[in-house]
Amino acid sequence: MKKINTAPMSGMQELTPNMQAEFDRLKAGISEAFLRHGFQHIETPVIERTEILLAKAGGDTEKQIYKVVKTAEAADTADQALRFDHTVPLARYAVEHMNDLTFPFKVTQIARNFRGERAQRGRFREFYQCDVDVIGWQSLPVAYDAEVIVTLAEALKTLPLPEFVIRVSNRKLLSGVIRELNLEQVAGEVFDIIDHAEKVSEQKTQERFEALGIGTENVVKITTFMQIRGKSVEVLEKLRGMGFQNEMFQEGVRELGEMLEMVEMMMPTLEVMADMLIVRGLDYYTGTVFETIVPEYREIGSICSGGRYENLAENYTDQALPGVGGSIGLTRLFYILQEFQFVKASEVRAIDICVVPISKGELEVAGKLAKQLRKDGKAVDLVLTERKLGDKMKYAAKVADFAVVVGEEEARTGAFQMKNLETGETTEVKLVG
Amino acid sequence: MKKINTAPMSGMQELTPNMQAEFDRLKAGISEAFLRHGFQHIETPVIERTEILLAKAGGDTEKQIYKVVKTAEAADTADQALRFDHTVPLARYAVEHMNDLTFPFKVTQIARNFRGERAQRGRFREFYQCDVDVIGWQSLPVAYDAEVIVTLAEALKTLPLPEFVIRVSNRKLLSGVIRELNLEQVAGEVFDIIDHAEKVSEQKTQERFEALGIGTENVVKITTFMQIRGKSVEVLEKLRGMGFQNEMFQEGVRELGEMLEMVEMMMPTLEVMADMLIVRGLDYYTGTVFETIVPEYREIGSICSGGRYENLAENYTDQALPGVGGSIGLTRLFYILQEFQFVKASEVRAIDICVVPISKGELEVAGKLAKQLRKDGKAVDLVLTERKLGDKMKYAAKVADFAVVVGEEEARTGAFQMKNLETGETTEVKLVG
Repeated sequence: MKKINTAPMSGMQELTPNMQAEFDRLKAGISEAFLRHGFQHIETPVIERTEILLAKAGGDTEKQIYKVVKTAEAADTADQALRFDHTVPLARYAVEHMNDLTFPFKVTQIARNFRGERAQRGRFREFYQCDVDVIGWQSLPVAYDAEVIVTLAEALKTLPLPEFVIRVSNRKLLSGVIRELNLEQVAGEVFDIIDHAEKVSEQKTQERFEALGIGTENVVKITTFMQIRGKSVEVLEKLRGMGFQNEMFQEGVRELGEMLEMVEMMMPTLEVMADMLIVRGLDYYTGTVFETIVPEYREIGSICSGGRYENLAENYTDQALPGVGGSIGLTRLFYILQEFQFVKASEVRAIDICVVPISKGELEVAGKLAKQLRKDGKAVDLVLTERKLGDKMKYAAKVADFAVVVGEEEARTGAFQMKNLETGETTEVKLVG
Repeated sequence: MKKINTAPMSGMQELTPNMQAEFDRLKAGISEAFLRHGFQHIETPVIERTEILLAKAGGDTEKQIYKVVKTAEAADTADQALRFDHTVPLARYAVEHMNDLTFPFKVTQIARNFRGERAQRGRFREFYQCDVDVIGWQSLPVAYDAEVIVTLAEALKTLPLPEFVIRVSNRKLLSGVIRELNLEQVAGEVFDIIDHAEKVSEQKTQERFEALGIGTENVVKITTFMQIRGKSVEVLEKLRGMGFQNEMFQEGVRELGEMLEMVEMMMPTLEVMADMLIVRGLDYYTGTVFETIVPEYREIGSICSGGRYENLAENYTDQALPGVGGSIGLTRLFYILQEFQFVKASEVRAIDICVVPISKGELEVAGKLAKQLRKDGKAVDLVLTERKLGDKMKYAAKVADFAVVVGEEEARTGAFQMKNLETGETTEVKLVG
């Protein structure tokens, strides 16, 4: 009988051991892709000075920050709270360890962040984010924008997902359009209307543009611009065809072209779509921006996004640290993979092989076999309970993919049958030496 | 110029990328050893109901718990705090998911816990603990005590540590001594005196015993008992030689003997020492107890300890869940490994290989080489900056073990020199296909 409520708190993802093993496999796949591309892993504390966390934040973030109370024994500390993303701690880290770092600093963080949001299905208050960033010293070539996108794509490819498409743009393009049309005074609104264009009807978008009072001709030009999408060459031609000469727009075209060319060279198989609808709401992006969709399941929304920012740590240092980065929200993505049956509890097991001695007499040989299988890199559980064989096999079927029974005969000959617990097929295993 | 304090908060371990890579390697070694022994990994939320965390805790723990303030958007939640160990969340988890678990439940948790302790050199407020536990349903064979010890030893063997010795005992032995001598009314003091015997002088220990007023004969018997240590057979003989007939003591001898025999069978090379000085202060241990020392560096104290407990989750359920477990405090251990120069910042690099194209013309071939090396499982950084070769090589030497320069000649022939950046030695690498 339960005595008190043992459910995890609302908004927390807590998995059974088999599902956790699957989650860990996906996380390891992402992490390996990042590390193989030369990104260096760092970890920052979960608890940060509130002053650091709130230096840039505002609005929603502030309402979602978990403040942490000083303990009786550590009353000396500053006001503190739990980090809500990886970017703010990275900015602090880059400034604090500046002299120990090598720039461009290619860095990855894979850990939980914390946001006390309103409870909502599929939203989590503790959630894994898998980030890659490249931080430059004073400047950073656009080639690294491509590197970030390709690295994230390689990571996504390790997941049990249908085909995905990365949609890219460059915020300098829309900024250039706004400059060309002299619309700086409504720039924020124009970005916002385009950012939301896919979530509302076409008519609604037109109404919002008209409400700006910028004249029909301008609305037509913006609408023409925002409908530009497609493969590299085609999009670059259409952009040039707009005839905008200002430096901002031209730079956007150049950067987008160079970035797409690099991606094509590094990963020719990647589905990349240049799409002027991509602007990313967050106003700290200044160049490349991208999102990732799964066309078969558009309702999922973006599963991986990011972009280029001019200055990572302007609140902590006067040193210019331009960067580019992106993130996979793994806790939410794992929830979606379960919802859409890409990951099924019935098909995943935490352990590779259960070695099942029938009685104590076979324990020594069973132990030797377990050791041998472990040396081959397998996760092997040696069953030490003194139950009936049937009960031991029931246990094995729940936790492992394979089982090996060790009876008197097997112990004598050193030859065993490894049984696939799903299909019933067996293969022979021999004790070596 | 720094604008605000960017140091991590006091009591937090924050590593440079190269040291983090070394930390990650050690953590992965421990984790692999646990998984290969068939322990199932789980993760619980960092934030727990205060009611859960304080159900058992008291004293120091309560003074060290980090309470978490409800956020404006999640004001509906219960009182909450950060977990301070893995055992309490495991108890909650085992009760909450009881019907989805398979017993004996072999479980591992490797994650950070949080204690707002007084600031002290080498003590951390956020710290990794690497735990293994086996939870039985109603009962659990002593063989699993051996399994936990062997698994932890296999994990410790993966670390850059000198030889270690596991010191074991069984709390039923001292409980049996106390019962035999009718000293139940001072049982707590006797445990405490023996628990502290190695931290004070022999004389001090004698004085404390005498202060109990239990008579010289009893003090002699206890002193004789607490000095028993050595290899399995020898210790068991000495224990039997004490002539204590009560069931508690006899059971202690039986369990210790069986456990040592199992360890010997599973891992004959392991240095195990039965030692009656080991009692472990925590009063929830009821049988097997163990600590691990590095004889060459005794001042470090125990680097891995644990034991058997009668009932994991008595505060949350009436169901008896006996268990046995142990833990490696990795954050503190890593700090010690640095202090004693077993891990040196100068000798560790986060990345395996830097591929360095001399100019943009070699980028395509360099990218192909990087891809090939990544397929072999290497962490490969493709340098995309447009700097002088000398600067690129300085960068490589700081982050990687090896570098491959790709110039016109190499790009044409597809043959490269891979340079060991520490020794200067080179080996040839060829682009395949």
